[in-house]
Amino acid sequence: MKCRRCRGPAVIEVRRHNAAYCKECFFHVFRAQVKRAIAQYDMLARSDRILVAVSGGKDSLALWDVLLELGYDVTGLYLGLGIEAYSTRSGEASKAFAADRGADLVVVDLERDYGYDIPTAGKRGSRSTCAVCGLSKRYVFNRAALEGGFDVVATGHNLDDEAATLLGNTLRWQTEYIARQSPALPAKEGMVKKVKPLFRLSELETAAFAFLRGIDYVVEECPLVAGNTQLRYKDAMNAIEADSPGTKAQFLLGYLDRGLPLFRSEDSAVLAFCENCGQPTTGQFCAFCRARAQILGERLTPFDDAAIEEELADEVMPVEIYEGSM
Amino acid sequence: MKCRRCRGPAVIEVRRHNAAYCKECFFHVFRAQVKRAIAQYDMLARSDRILVAVSGGKDSLALWDVLLELGYDVTGLYLGLGIEAYSTRSGEASKAFAADRGADLVVVDLERDYGYDIPTAGKRGSRSTCAVCGLSKRYVFNRAALEGGFDVVATGHNLDDEAATLLGNTLRWQTEYIARQSPALPAKEGMVKKVKPLFRLSELETAAFAFLRGIDYVVEECPLVAGNTQLRYKDAMNAIEADSPGTKAQFLLGYLDRGLPLFRSEDSAVLAFCENCGQPTTGQFCAFCRARAQILGERLTPFDDAAIEEELADEVMPVEIYEGSM
Repeated sequence: MKCRRCRGPAVIEVRRHNAAYCKECFFHVFRAQVKRAIAQYDMLARSDRILVAVSGGKDSLALWDVLLELGYDVTGLYLGLGIEAYSTRSGEASKAFAADRGADLVVVDLERDYGYDIPTAGKRGSRSTCAVCGLSKRYVFNRAALEGGFDVVATGHNLDDEAATLLGNTLRWQTEYIARQSPALPAKEGMVKKVKPLFRLSELETAAFAFLRGIDYVVEECPLVAGNTQLRYKDAMNAIEADSPGTKAQFLLGYLDRGLPLFRSEDSAVLAFCENCGQPTTGQFCAFCRARAQILGERLTPFDDAAIEEELADEVMPVEIYEGSM
Repeated sequence: MKCRRCRGPAVIEVRRHNAAYCKECFFHVFRAQVKRAIAQYDMLARSDRILVAVSGGKDSLALWDVLLELGYDVTGLYLGLGIEAYSTRSGEASKAFAADRGADLVVVDLERDYGYDIPTAGKRGSRSTCAVCGLSKRYVFNRAALEGGFDVVATGHNLDDEAATLLGNTLRWQTEYIARQSPALPAKEGMVKKVKPLFRLSELETAAFAFLRGIDYVVEECPLVAGNTQLRYKDAMNAIEADSPGTKAQFLLGYLDRGLPLFRSEDSAVLAFCENCGQPTTGQFCAFCRARAQILGERLTPFDDAAIEEELADEVMPVEIYEGSM
């Protein structure tokens, strides 16, 4: 087979494009898809400080690699989940990648910084392991970005991830979730901008890219993910894709083109701030603080303005506090 | 296992309802679902003349059976498709059912009445066999109902059929098709009202109902349907359903509840009348006449008003035509 671009010997076939490429041309095509995604959704600016969430897997390391190659100001964020040997290897792969490229890496550890790990969370909380893991990641990514002064969080979600999520949300007609499934979510108060520059690229393509780029990524799946609903949706999509190549891309891109506009009115969440941690939420306490309290067996208490005033009244106030009123 | 309603010995388990029933109670529950569908979508009135499209299979004969039992004024319509032994057996099963119940049956034959059969259509036309078959059925059902003075056409589409169709339309985000996928489509000029009273019942339930009612239906699938896209969507839905019972119903009923309202604005088709046959269409000629002309190797010519006027001018007009103007 010959490369579609340079007519040299091809090393990879992209069936849904009915094309094959040599290594360098595949890199070119891959990066072009990322550039197209970034431009289409106005994801990243040259002046942005970007935080890329890395798991040590193919997708997130491929994304970090591409963004560095494209010259963006990008820092990695690794979140330690405490999933035994899997997490150890994931952390090592992320650190080795950063060291190789001389790139910055922020490390957050759930156990060290928040008092629990994912295996414990899966056993103690009322949520499934994957649900509490997803919730923890979203929370930590946003908080770390805000606290580190980053403009945007980039994640390595690929076409297969996004199509499977969309299928799950659509099978349940969770219209609010469907409405929010965009490759770029703008910043709101307390919520940093979030982007998914790999959404046009399939899992097979990101794996091939990482492999051909010589990235040393963790191949194994998370050991807790087996039988996960998302994987079943991926299986269903893959079964259909095998018979009709292109269905996955058609489903996701068709949604973004023709579906999403119809769902816009459904994204009606009104944000307040969590009375425990101050991060955005739709309720009194955010889902993260509620889950964490359940896992740690703690009770959540709101900031009590009256109680705080009483405490203050008992204290001798430093002079400068009274200056304005005196 | 015991019947949920009467505590007698159960003969059928309905897994998504987590319930089992004896024969008579299953009939009751099945008919209750049909009554609920009819009431919810205002499908049928006692005074309506109903034409039920029957294929000789479990779904359409079960529907006919239920509607007769519920006391509706219902006539069967059998369309001969010319698919060899399969069609012969289907026609016989439909006729035997009608004779057993003393019910009326209208028989249309594609070859006799329209000059082609489905195997020929699949070979000669540009459409897939299943596409031209579906098109022919929709056309003949509507035309037979209009010409026979019926108020409504009822078809035996079940939950599995509807969920698979919705999945196919959603995977392609064919928003106009999605918008029109309702269990009841009201009459428009030239379009008779169409209803699907079995949409709340699964394929397994209609098969069990037909079997337990002693209906002699054709069990075999159409021999031309193998590998059909719709069957692949059914497989994908069944794979998901096996892991999460209830997904199919959740998908279809959730769509009708929360999805359909968002798609309403997409059903923007403006109907005209086919210049060949006079039936409703969105173009100059209807899809049926275009497909038929292609299959028969004929050319379609529009009604030419000028040419007709010229022909008329050459004729000696009978006196009564001039009466009004003389």
